[in-house]
Amino acid sequence: MPRQVDHAARLAAVTDAVVAIAAERGFAAVTIRAVADHLGASTSVVTHYVPSRDDLLRLAVRREVAVRRAEAERAMAAGPDPLWALVRWAVADLGGQVHRFWLSLLIAAPTEPVLRAELDGFNTWWDGHLRGLVRRSGVADPEVVADTLDVVVDGLVTAGFEDLDPTRRDRVLTRVWSALGLAAG
Amino acid sequence: MPRQVDHAARLAAVTDAVVAIAAERGFAAVTIRAVADHLGASTSVVTHYVPSRDDLLRLAVRREVAVRRAEAERAMAAGPDPLWALVRWAVADLGGQVHRFWLSLLIAAPTEPVLRAELDGFNTWWDGHLRGLVRRSGVADPEVVADTLDVVVDGLVTAGFEDLDPTRRDRVLTRVWSALGLAAG
Repeated sequence: MPRQVDHAARLAAVTDAVVAIAAERGFAAVTIRAVADHLGASTSVVTHYVPSRDDLLRLAVRREVAVRRAEAERAMAAGPDPLWALVRWAVADLGGQVHRFWLSLLIAAPTEPVLRAELDGFNTWWDGHLRGLVRRSGVADPEVVADTLDVVVDGLVTAGFEDLDPTRRDRVLTRVWSALGLAAG
Repeated sequence: MPRQVDHAARLAAVTDAVVAIAAERGFAAVTIRAVADHLGASTSVVTHYVPSRDDLLRLAVRREVAVRRAEAERAMAAGPDPLWALVRWAVADLGGQVHRFWLSLLIAAPTEPVLRAELDGFNTWWDGHLRGLVRRSGVADPEVVADTLDVVVDGLVTAGFEDLDPTRRDRVLTRVWSALGLAAG
């Protein structure tokens, strides 16, 4: 990285590298050495900006979560049905790299306390919106319906790595929506 | 590994190591060196039994798939409702390490042709059973119902890494079953 690049830009480059490595090879592959190699820099350049591996993980997940929350909040504010908008955003608007990063995060969280803590923060936000919106929809058994939507969102993200194309994905989502008694999105 | 151990036992130990590493750290972490370290052996011991990394991946996935297919076929043969038995087996009977291995396989398959080929073989078997059983259930729109069950299975496996406990998992599955118009399992 050229010396003139300012601190914020270098931090952003380090964060981009962590996200790319985690999405491509999983969080176990995120090391100070791997980030340095990804940037074509020495490990001391990386540790000058981010002193430890845990700090690397925290920085990357925190930025990703902040970006995704902002996107989701814009989607919910824009649509006539914020519940539908939230679920559509999670399964259809996010790209493959985001879904890979996300699944890598879910898999790694049980064994990486830093990831667990950041993911818990996101989940509190997600649950608050999803469960609040399901309750306000007036559907019977809102807790089971919210759990089911969580499962379907996770499943559509995972099935995206298989051969489920957007047309079939949308048919599944529409079918689940009506089968659960939710109003048309 | 003691020298007296026979060829089959050594191959099994190598395969166990690949499965453990893939489940814990993802397929990107599976290397001949990592397998040797896991076994406390030299890399030449590993390559004596399995000459390349691709062979390691193929061996491990093929054995896992064979074991899981046999389990699923026993489950389908034992229950009064083979569709319910197949889905229950996938989401409830398999343990956490199997689910971790499976998700690691799904994530890695797009970039590892050996994994892609083995997973395609399993998917052909899975689709044949799941879609055949859904069609025979007499439900309307069997293709959408089968896609939805695929998504729900993937979602329940993924949600198992989150805070979805078995009671809530079972409520989701029962709700999906009735919402899709399938007979009680």
